[in-house]
Amino acid sequence: MYRTHTCGELRPSHINTEVTLCGWVQTVRKFGSITFTDLRDRYGLTQLLFNEQLNTRLDETPIGREYVIQIKGKVLERSNKNAKIPTGEIEVEVIDFTIMNVAATPPFTIEENTDGGDELRMKYRYLDLRRPMLKRNLELRYKVSRSVRNYLDTIGFWDIETPFLIKSTPEGARDFVVPSRMNEGQFYALPQSPQTFKQLLMVSGYDRYYQIVKCFRDEDLRADRQPEFTQIDCEMSFVEQEDILNVFEGLFKHVFEEVKGITITEQFPRITWDDAMWHYGNDKPDLRFEMKIQNLKTSFVHPSIEAPDHNIFCHALNGVDFKVTNEAESILAIVVPNASEYTRKQTDELTEWVKRPQIGMTGLLFVKCNADGTFKSSVDKFFDEDRLKDIANFTGAAAGDLILILAGNETRTRKATSDLRLEIGERLGLRNPDVYKPLWVIDFPLFEYDEEGNRWVARHHPFTSPKPEHIDVMINNDPKIAEAALFYKHPYNNIKANAYDIVLNGTEIGGGSIRIYQRALQEKMFAALGMSKEEAQEKFGFLLGAFEYGAPPHGGIAFGFDRLCALLGGQETIRDFIAFPKNNSGRDVMIDAPSSIDDQQLNELRLKSTV
Amino acid sequence: MYRTHTCGELRPSHINTEVTLCGWVQTVRKFGSITFTDLRDRYGLTQLLFNEQLNTRLDETPIGREYVIQIKGKVLERSNKNAKIPTGEIEVEVIDFTIMNVAATPPFTIEENTDGGDELRMKYRYLDLRRPMLKRNLELRYKVSRSVRNYLDTIGFWDIETPFLIKSTPEGARDFVVPSRMNEGQFYALPQSPQTFKQLLMVSGYDRYYQIVKCFRDEDLRADRQPEFTQIDCEMSFVEQEDILNVFEGLFKHVFEEVKGITITEQFPRITWDDAMWHYGNDKPDLRFEMKIQNLKTSFVHPSIEAPDHNIFCHALNGVDFKVTNEAESILAIVVPNASEYTRKQTDELTEWVKRPQIGMTGLLFVKCNADGTFKSSVDKFFDEDRLKDIANFTGAAAGDLILILAGNETRTRKATSDLRLEIGERLGLRNPDVYKPLWVIDFPLFEYDEEGNRWVARHHPFTSPKPEHIDVMINNDPKIAEAALFYKHPYNNIKANAYDIVLNGTEIGGGSIRIYQRALQEKMFAALGMSKEEAQEKFGFLLGAFEYGAPPHGGIAFGFDRLCALLGGQETIRDFIAFPKNNSGRDVMIDAPSSIDDQQLNELRLKSTV
Repeated sequence: MYRTHTCGELRPSHINTEVTLCGWVQTVRKFGSITFTDLRDRYGLTQLLFNEQLNTRLDETPIGREYVIQIKGKVLERSNKNAKIPTGEIEVEVIDFTIMNVAATPPFTIEENTDGGDELRMKYRYLDLRRPMLKRNLELRYKVSRSVRNYLDTIGFWDIETPFLIKSTPEGARDFVVPSRMNEGQFYALPQSPQTFKQLLMVSGYDRYYQIVKCFRDEDLRADRQPEFTQIDCEMSFVEQEDILNVFEGLFKHVFEEVKGITITEQFPRITWDDAMWHYGNDKPDLRFEMKIQNLKTSFVHPSIEAPDHNIFCHALNGVDFKVTNEAESILAIVVPNASEYTRKQTDELTEWVKRPQIGMTGLLFVKCNADGTFKSSVDKFFDEDRLKDIANFTGAAAGDLILILAGNETRTRKATSDLRLEIGERLGLRNPDVYKPLWVIDFPLFEYDEEGNRWVARHHPFTSPKPEHIDVMINNDPKIAEAALFYKHPYNNIKANAYDIVLNGTEIGGGSIRIYQRALQEKMFAALGMSKEEAQEKFGFLLGAFEYGAPPHGGIAFGFDRLCALLGGQETIRDFIAFPKNNSGRDVMIDAPSSIDDQQLNELRLKSTV
Repeated sequence: MYRTHTCGELRPSHINTEVTLCGWVQTVRKFGSITFTDLRDRYGLTQLLFNEQLNTRLDETPIGREYVIQIKGKVLERSNKNAKIPTGEIEVEVIDFTIMNVAATPPFTIEENTDGGDELRMKYRYLDLRRPMLKRNLELRYKVSRSVRNYLDTIGFWDIETPFLIKSTPEGARDFVVPSRMNEGQFYALPQSPQTFKQLLMVSGYDRYYQIVKCFRDEDLRADRQPEFTQIDCEMSFVEQEDILNVFEGLFKHVFEEVKGITITEQFPRITWDDAMWHYGNDKPDLRFEMKIQNLKTSFVHPSIEAPDHNIFCHALNGVDFKVTNEAESILAIVVPNASEYTRKQTDELTEWVKRPQIGMTGLLFVKCNADGTFKSSVDKFFDEDRLKDIANFTGAAAGDLILILAGNETRTRKATSDLRLEIGERLGLRNPDVYKPLWVIDFPLFEYDEEGNRWVARHHPFTSPKPEHIDVMINNDPKIAEAALFYKHPYNNIKANAYDIVLNGTEIGGGSIRIYQRALQEKMFAALGMSKEEAQEKFGFLLGAFEYGAPPHGGIAFGFDRLCALLGGQETIRDFIAFPKNNSGRDVMIDAPSSIDDQQLNELRLKSTV
């Protein structure tokens, strides 16, 4: 052993003992004839004191930042105690030292806040990983995985590995493919998820399966997506939706408790997809603050709310000679508490914000509900005081509040109102990363209509079961749609999936479903998605076959592990929670991959580049 | 929940309670007006009793093997108890049942011993996985991984994920490559091991890393190799060989204790590579039995043994006018205890065995040491009684033993004697799969000479450090060899690696080394392997760069997880310990992968098939 203790270990109880430490030189501070150094390793920092004799040696063989040294020394009580670090009560007076390895000057400072730019830090990732933030992140990641594994073990889940070299079945995202040398002209694909394999494990009777596993998607990378990412992948047999929600809510509570020290006793809220869209404008609502969307007028079909007057819910809109509100498909509002005194500058700024191309609205209407009970709006010309009061009543705005109103096409307006809600929440400091508000979103539509292909696509994936009460609708109707405009009227549009997402602070961190386990229903699903019988057989024959030999009812869920860690770390970018991430072009700039390969390698694979 | 209990759970304490069970119908046995059924799930078997009333329903909707059913029933004490299964004291009288899914007749029986052939079972792997043997194997695999993780956690190792899409560096085995769509004409490679990444993690200061991780090798598959396999991959900083051996010996003892209930208190034997070759003829000796190789004459250079008379150790060979022994480069023997009474038929059979092309010897000599003190040999014509006695003395054979002697070229003869030793051990029942004899093999040669390329190749890998005392020899000598015959005399031939293998029952289950951590030494290594400076920079520049910024001394080990599980399961084939293995052509015959892909996919990757 090169050391007797780590740099995070020594305490007053060690005073007067002789120790050997190894680590990296964090700082070198010379005071006259003595030198202080902080020595760093994974476990912490220890202050070293080089006395006068050793200073001569230090002059001959100087040590610098990031040098790796081994020291033998005696633990002393520190006169100048540092309460900020666990070893702050002691220091080690060096008796002897060895330079184990020298270090060139790092291209950026290796400290909590670095002066290094993104590119540079990615190239020297091995140095960036020395920074406390990244070390904390990877430690958190390990703790989360450990906590997940411990919990799942106690309730009988087995970690079972599924293959990485599988079959390409272009559905949804693009596969990464792997040419096979031994099977000429053929390709494996890397899994986008272990979906079909975990279902086969259920058919095999394995009952409770999980894996923390790499998955791959060859997508054009938006910011903060990675071509390879990690999933916590789970599946259970003989369960209904309720069982899955309970088991994995338990998992989350366990992880929160163990990793964050946060105890959540109450059940996570469960919100239907319809309600989420109705009240928040998206299917991953951030529940850290209320500020629900008020539906003044909308074409959105909410099953439990009947439009009293076509699609106008707020009567104040009726009989007003205002083109904008009359012609808008949807008019949606949010109420900003205590904001009636926003200045013209502030409301102008918000107007500019909604007009940005990412939001795409043409303008923003607002109603100030003054503290004195009067109203002032940007549409005073069309809406008299009574109507404004009606709007305030409808939206639940109180004196002192500000009502922000967006009008236009339903899809765009709802998205914009949702974005505006989040933006206002952000500006008001209501999106504290240390506050955690998990919830389940349930009852998703089973299908989405793809106008371009004039066909249904699976919202979750083709293995998701409809709600039991909708199976007949699915089986007994022809999925064909004569024309795009009629798709809202098609019975398939009302089929709900036996699917659920878990959402944390406005981010979807997991999703799953109860699966189809009957061959006939699975065949109907493939047909509904426009797959011919032959195609279905070629791609998924093994699964259809498996369903003939006694498939149990089953369901599961998968969590985005990278994202979950980032959220638990109170940060936004998953890249900082991955030891060796790729950049936005899918490149690892440290090892310089991907790269060209030898012609011989290509020849062996019977391939030719057309670049 | 579809069930209140599992099929392995009910005990006499449950008698008279009402339960709901789900599972697969294992057997249906009709006795007059009642029917017995065994219901199976992951947890066990429970006997069900369908009484007279329900039998009518069973006649209408019959249930068959592998049907999935749900039953409600009452737990009764069984009159005919079955001590072989944990639920054997009870049975469940069915009150109501539902057929959850029907099953076609399986293509083979789903029982301990099946009538299905290999091909068929691979195609219907999801049915084969229902068999108790495979279930036990996957359960064992999970237990081993769990035990490994638990142990490594307690001693401060962090599971840190390394990337799967890396860079192709053709060294050793062939890489699987992954064409990049976003980086035209370029390829990722799938890792053969996370070697360089785990070393970078040490440079980053992560101190103790592990991962249970998939690795990939595009090799022509010999029996029982898989293109994707799993490694337990570990690395530590500030350690020497001794530390690694102690830590991972601890891991093994923990796993043996926890998974097999076997307590090993003594230290694992440590045998140098030279000794292993000298005494056992291979570098992964099976220590479940002795029967060491006796070196009568050999050109093998064992460092601690000086040949008294050139390379003849057994004087009985001197002055004998026998061409075979005179001309042989090596003469090696093993002593089979209590086998002097082998019949002519038995010795003929052994002779045939060594003449098989896999062994490749031209014959087998033997000396019978009769119980009465006389000797009888197949070479009586050349060796008189005294000489036979000398041979018996030299080999340590006692009265009643049989000495088997092979002669010929050193390499082939040593290999053949090693094989013969194992074969005899097998025949004598000395290779009991329930007996475990782990050991370390240390002090491997650092280099092997590749005659074809007239260059040195790394025996372990290019990142392995020489023994500290051999670093100077490595640095100060030119690796070039004038001609192949001289390589034995080259100083590089005597350099020992700071490397170690762990061997269990004649199988290498893991290996590792202390790594090079100095740029200059690493560059010398690349040069010794025939890599140009430019090539080394292009392939491993990131690692050489990392060594400039304060790399600590470090080392590690990797275990073949599939093989380890097979050994702990007392079986030979790793395929039965992998949920979804590939066949010997690298195909998954269940999902039919690899397969052809769309031209569009190929076009997007800018590739063309030349098949």
